[in-house]
Amino acid sequence: MLLNSDQIAQHNEARLAKHKQQLAPWTGEVDKTEAIIEKLMAYQVAIPSWALGTGGTRFGRFPGGGEPRSLDEKIDDVGLLHALNRSSGAISLHIPWDIPADAAATRERAAALGLTFDAVNSNTFQDQADQPESYKFGSLQHVDAAVRQQAIDHNIEVIRHGVELGSKSLTVWLSDGSCFPGQLNFRQAFQRTYESLQAIYAALPPDWKVFVEYKAFEPNFYSMTVGDWGSSLLYAQKLGPQAYTLVDLGHHLPNANIEQIVSLLLMEGKLGGFHFNDSKYGDDDLTVGSIRPYQLFLIFNELVEGMDARGMNHASDLGWMIDASHNVKDPLEDLLQSVEAIQIAYAQALLIDQARLADARNANDVVTAQEILQDAFRTDVRPLVAEARLRAGGALAPLALFREQAIRQQLIGQRGAKAIATGL
Amino acid sequence: MLLNSDQIAQHNEARLAKHKQQLAPWTGEVDKTEAIIEKLMAYQVAIPSWALGTGGTRFGRFPGGGEPRSLDEKIDDVGLLHALNRSSGAISLHIPWDIPADAAATRERAAALGLTFDAVNSNTFQDQADQPESYKFGSLQHVDAAVRQQAIDHNIEVIRHGVELGSKSLTVWLSDGSCFPGQLNFRQAFQRTYESLQAIYAALPPDWKVFVEYKAFEPNFYSMTVGDWGSSLLYAQKLGPQAYTLVDLGHHLPNANIEQIVSLLLMEGKLGGFHFNDSKYGDDDLTVGSIRPYQLFLIFNELVEGMDARGMNHASDLGWMIDASHNVKDPLEDLLQSVEAIQIAYAQALLIDQARLADARNANDVVTAQEILQDAFRTDVRPLVAEARLRAGGALAPLALFREQAIRQQLIGQRGAKAIATGL
Amino acid sequence: MLLNSDQIAQHNEARLAKHKQQLAPWTGEVDKTEAIIEKLMAYQVAIPSWALGTGGTRFGRFPGGGEPRSLDEKIDDVGLLHALNRSSGAISLHIPWDIPADAAATRERAAALGLTFDAVNSNTFQDQADQPESYKFGSLQHVDAAVRQQAIDHNIEVIRHGVELGSKSLTVWLSDGSCFPGQLNFRQAFQRTYESLQAIYAALPPDWKVFVEYKAFEPNFYSMTVGDWGSSLLYAQKLGPQAYTLVDLGHHLPNANIEQIVSLLLMEGKLGGFHFNDSKYGDDDLTVGSIRPYQLFLIFNELVEGMDARGMNHASDLGWMIDASHNVKDPLEDLLQSVEAIQIAYAQALLIDQARLADARNANDVVTAQEILQDAFRTDVRPLVAEARLRAGGALAPLALFREQAIRQQLIGQRGAKAIATGL
Amino acid sequence: MLLNSDQIAQHNEARLAKHKQQLAPWTGEVDKTEAIIEKLMAYQVAIPSWALGTGGTRFGRFPGGGEPRSLDEKIDDVGLLHALNRSSGAISLHIPWDIPADAAATRERAAALGLTFDAVNSNTFQDQADQPESYKFGSLQHVDAAVRQQAIDHNIEVIRHGVELGSKSLTVWLSDGSCFPGQLNFRQAFQRTYESLQAIYAALPPDWKVFVEYKAFEPNFYSMTVGDWGSSLLYAQKLGPQAYTLVDLGHHLPNANIEQIVSLLLMEGKLGGFHFNDSKYGDDDLTVGSIRPYQLFLIFNELVEGMDARGMNHASDLGWMIDASHNVKDPLEDLLQSVEAIQIAYAQALLIDQARLADARNANDVVTAQEILQDAFRTDVRPLVAEARLRAGGALAPLALFREQAIRQQLIGQRGAKAIATGL
Repeated sequence: MLLNSDQIAQHNEARLAKHKQQLAPWTGEVDKTEAIIEKLMAYQVAIPSWALGTGGTRFGRFPGGGEPRSLDEKIDDVGLLHALNRSSGAISLHIPWDIPADAAATRERAAALGLTFDAVNSNTFQDQADQPESYKFGSLQHVDAAVRQQAIDHNIEVIRHGVELGSKSLTVWLSDGSCFPGQLNFRQAFQRTYESLQAIYAALPPDWKVFVEYKAFEPNFYSMTVGDWGSSLLYAQKLGPQAYTLVDLGHHLPNANIEQIVSLLLMEGKLGGFHFNDSKYGDDDLTVGSIRPYQLFLIFNELVEGMDARGMNHASDLGWMIDASHNVKDPLEDLLQSVEAIQIAYAQALLIDQARLADARNANDVVTAQEILQDAFRTDVRPLVAEARLRAGGALAPLALFREQAIRQQLIGQRGAKAIATGL
Repeated sequence: MLLNSDQIAQHNEARLAKHKQQLAPWTGEVDKTEAIIEKLMAYQVAIPSWALGTGGTRFGRFPGGGEPRSLDEKIDDVGLLHALNRSSGAISLHIPWDIPADAAATRERAAALGLTFDAVNSNTFQDQADQPESYKFGSLQHVDAAVRQQAIDHNIEVIRHGVELGSKSLTVWLSDGSCFPGQLNFRQAFQRTYESLQAIYAALPPDWKVFVEYKAFEPNFYSMTVGDWGSSLLYAQKLGPQAYTLVDLGHHLPNANIEQIVSLLLMEGKLGGFHFNDSKYGDDDLTVGSIRPYQLFLIFNELVEGMDARGMNHASDLGWMIDASHNVKDPLEDLLQSVEAIQIAYAQALLIDQARLADARNANDVVTAQEILQDAFRTDVRPLVAEARLRAGGALAPLALFREQAIRQQLIGQRGAKAIATGL
Repeated sequence: MLLNSDQIAQHNEARLAKHKQQLAPWTGEVDKTEAIIEKLMAYQVAIPSWALGTGGTRFGRFPGGGEPRSLDEKIDDVGLLHALNRSSGAISLHIPWDIPADAAATRERAAALGLTFDAVNSNTFQDQADQPESYKFGSLQHVDAAVRQQAIDHNIEVIRHGVELGSKSLTVWLSDGSCFPGQLNFRQAFQRTYESLQAIYAALPPDWKVFVEYKAFEPNFYSMTVGDWGSSLLYAQKLGPQAYTLVDLGHHLPNANIEQIVSLLLMEGKLGGFHFNDSKYGDDDLTVGSIRPYQLFLIFNELVEGMDARGMNHASDLGWMIDASHNVKDPLEDLLQSVEAIQIAYAQALLIDQARLADARNANDVVTAQEILQDAFRTDVRPLVAEARLRAGGALAPLALFREQAIRQQLIGQRGAKAIATGL
Repeated sequence: MLLNSDQIAQHNEARLAKHKQQLAPWTGEVDKTEAIIEKLMAYQVAIPSWALGTGGTRFGRFPGGGEPRSLDEKIDDVGLLHALNRSSGAISLHIPWDIPADAAATRERAAALGLTFDAVNSNTFQDQADQPESYKFGSLQHVDAAVRQQAIDHNIEVIRHGVELGSKSLTVWLSDGSCFPGQLNFRQAFQRTYESLQAIYAALPPDWKVFVEYKAFEPNFYSMTVGDWGSSLLYAQKLGPQAYTLVDLGHHLPNANIEQIVSLLLMEGKLGGFHFNDSKYGDDDLTVGSIRPYQLFLIFNELVEGMDARGMNHASDLGWMIDASHNVKDPLEDLLQSVEAIQIAYAQALLIDQARLADARNANDVVTAQEILQDAFRTDVRPLVAEARLRAGGALAPLALFREQAIRQQLIGQRGAKAIATGL
């Protein structure tokens, strides 16, 4: 292990005085503060196994070195993140990139690092070397039943791997769609996709969920067969109670009001999971909170209020995952920034006085409603987030400690400067 | 009447030779040609009563004169359009702008011009002078039950007017939404709106439909409570079999694939009506086909294929209406251009060889699928559209005849240069 | 005067202890803190005379009562804002809505309230009752020289009014453009507009600036003749050293990187002024900072760095103005929120350690560069902003005091519930 | 050669009667028709060497087989296209993907197929295996002078290759920019880029042009250092008379009015070249005319009018190139469709009666202006385009002949099913 608890303790020791000072203003409101800290400690964000290496675009990729070369090394990397922030206690695998050779051993390795296995992800957007049928023209939507069957079988195999690892959900993201007007009969593509999903749904263990992820465009540039929350909800309604919609922040048309979508899906009992990232133009997959932190906060406001209204458990009743790419940053540093941004938004949302907000709304007092939200957003909650980490055994300043310990350099030393992880 | 059948006959006479020549290439394929002409003749697009005057923006309005000053004059204007193109045989009224003093007389006047009454439209986006409650913070969504009841009652009154005139559907477009984060609880706004719609739905005659129109933004600039097809479909699903979604081409986020939405709504049996216009940025309400004629054609491709797949009657099973604004054009000329653009797109869609297209799709032959669509789109179908008009008793060149007869000048003479119609 | 200094003192007195406590963490870094407070005190944002009433859209307007009925009352309203926040010490007039009958008296009234006159604004996007030529098809771009001359003359008259009031700049916002393909020859429209601007430029006093404001769309929906910063810069380059570009935050295409535009215009020495507001879809004219506060901060980062690089004075070398609309909020409350949001963003930008940021950039340390910006943004600078207000004689909590003193109710009492201000 | 002139002749023979019939309506207006046909025959669109293989996205790539494995084979493929349509008589090379081992032989091979060498393209958006410095953080903008120098040297080397081949222009497309707020000082990035471009400019032969291509986003997702036409024009202005802006249709923000940009750049004498493709969401690189054919036509309207106004030669005074990707179509078929779409738009633009259009504009007759444009656009000009091909020795139906001769199957036979071309 590249980081031991002594190193963390030492790091914290050196920063403790300043932290206490920053936390001081909060100590007057113990009840509120403690409730938030507890929720922060319980809240875990899964790390996708494909986000541990440098990402790229169709124009190029500039790897940074020391990337994990195997599933074991990916688990180690997530373990490292979790040791630093105590909030990354789950890993989300991608099949076929991460097929465990020995599931029991893999589970054990993860457990030793405090990690569980979140949703498993299938891949029918690429052709694998040994694959008889091609997904060039889609997978679950394909006009050829043999291609659809191959994609169905693959998803069922992914479920099987997930069962062995203790996962409880399958995320189906389809790149299926079309690049040109005329290419698809939209209705028939929907219906074929629905039938394929039914076959996958039938293979779900009874305590599993399936997440039907939507995306507005890319890699298909004219239509996507699961293109928006409306389509995804239609599939989920038709499939049954184990099917849910999954929201990825980067999968919308320009200017979409994502927080309203979140609210409506929760209202319908059909929000299943969340993929965090940030973007300015499309599915840019940037660090969470790096472009529109207020939007992130507004989404958390809806999540907190909407989950509370349904009596849902924040920590366990939705699947939370980062789904970002790291083209110009160290992947691990990027993930540390992302998790912190999520925690900040969550803490700010927890600060909102929902009763006062409801009063302002009932009085049509738009000015006060805005003041209430912005008061929470403008509050510096970083001391609370740090305190939650501290209590959970993590580092007061994870990013700083990552650099103090020269962890990337150590990884390069171990794995080499040319090590490249599987992923996009 | 400003235009009599002799004038039309004379106009046609002068142009007949050239028309015949242009029609000649079509005569080789009589069956196909005749089928298209028949469908064109049957197809009528309703004209909204509020689109007969000059439109404007919040920045200003530049009226052009001769606008209709009363419901009777509005009916006359639509009658004039219909006399010219024989494809505008319906009028869609807006209450309270067009409350008929004597419904029987109004019906008679319309019938004399060959017009029926299409969907009636309610208005809860503006306050009327004598109205006790204000819609400043919404109508059907309002936190105050008294405001909701006022809006419900208004809609029921609109239905009553519609019944008297022979309408068979109510279009509910809500400007309800919010301008700022925090202003609304989205879920509760949805639920209040749904309950209000239920009350309106309960007042529908059994042979009526209600159209729930969605819009992405404007006049609310943060959220709209019926903001996209997904939301609208949810309302329509919950309300029951008489409730449908209405698609207005200008009510989407940038880059939306509207034709796919049309296809999915038809698949679900929930597409009720259509508002035609064109736009580049938002709800610009420009002349149909003036910005994206290919998109219009692609939408008609979905309409034709999707309606045929459900055995629907093109002419009568959906509500077809123009909903545009005319800020820099003569409103009647603009409407003539819009109707012609719709007919062209419809004729081109009818030209598509659906069997060959299905074959290309089944072979994943994307190149051929595109060729089939573009072959239809690149074909000059104006002779067919003109022939349909000619056979129905209209003018070969409606816009030209409108100018030849100096109709606007006549209208100004009758109504004055300062006459301004009700509307936006 | 509806608010006197005793009331402000009393308000502050009651809040002083809590304020001191919140300010405490800052007192350790006196030099930095004091420099920021001083800059905040010097920084004034002009209030446009048309933003003192309730705004609306083409769909409707819901006035709130007590709106100013005259230029004098508008000045009083700005005086009230300035008394509250000591940061609204300028007013920007709009001609012909605000023609002063007696310029000297108007100046005196403003001076008594501590107000100066910022840029004057012309209006060639609406027809006035007595105007011989119509702007329906544009003003400075018009194909008819008589219309252009009328618009030129109007701008020169606006300058004359401005001179009398002590303004030093003219803002030219043109709605000129086209609604349909074909309507304009873009090149000739540019050239006519340029020639018209030359005539206005020639009438500028030597110590004046002219701001050429750009806008992507609305009220024209196909093209705008000053449509983006590239066009505006072309005009400003050609006109000469007194011509500048003005940036309005809401006047861009979706996803535009406005902060980069700001940086490049400063680089070229051609940024003249700024119109603050916020938006999600178009020129929504929402409260500053209500939708994208991080973007606002990033813009201030560029302003601070870019102005410092040119040795510009933050307070006086650019024109700062709010240009928002208030459809669902009390206009004065909305303006208080907007000014505060601007001050917060400015203070956060001043917090940025530019030297460290430069180091991070030189090392391509993207992670640290982001940390530096987000550290500033996540810091709660509200105590500094409040302190600046306190020292300048304003209220610690302007919005709260506005409500405590029931100022809107007083205004309604004085001016009536139906008083409606000129504006959009 | 996979296609000889006998095969073309035979193909034409079989289709001649039908073609003559379709051409018949045009023969009445000989002067106009002949002028258009002549212009079509003179007009050549360059094919980029990287567009001859299957393209992909970061998610995957599905090659189709028979792709060119070398520069020679790429030239052969373009020769094949040119033999079919007689309008693809130029090839645009990309260095380092297409470095000619023997420039004289390469030139000869091209000349034998009737091809010339269009603009040469540099690549500083990817790292090559043997390259000492990395472009991860930019090339011409890089903070490190050594990286900038490497990129400058590369561009100068590209010029050298171009000189040997007879090219007369260099296209510089930079992916330089930033992914996160804070990463770049925009002003300094601009200035470093400008200085680098100066060094390249200094190496231009006197009869060469350099094209500075702009792009709004991707692969950088926060800022692009040559991000819009305004930036590109600034560089071109500063560099001097040999520097021009290059417009790629897919490189804009949503809803941009590209035709207006074209008009203004022509006005400034700074439009240098054009990259054709089509898109719905971003730089989708779809077949030209497949999504927005009316926009393409409107752009050609500006090109024709604007070039004529400056006395420019349509065929030779701008660089015309396709820059598309072919993810789901056969690349050669896709290119045939693209060239045809360009020719159709060009022919339609040539049909416009510019004098009548000018009259309509001068009369503010927006309705007629639209009618004039749409009359041209709705006209089926395919017979003219076919006639131009026929006279030039090409095929009446290039795509049909490509399939009749089973050219792809022949290419697969020669080059293998797994042959993959260099490119994106």
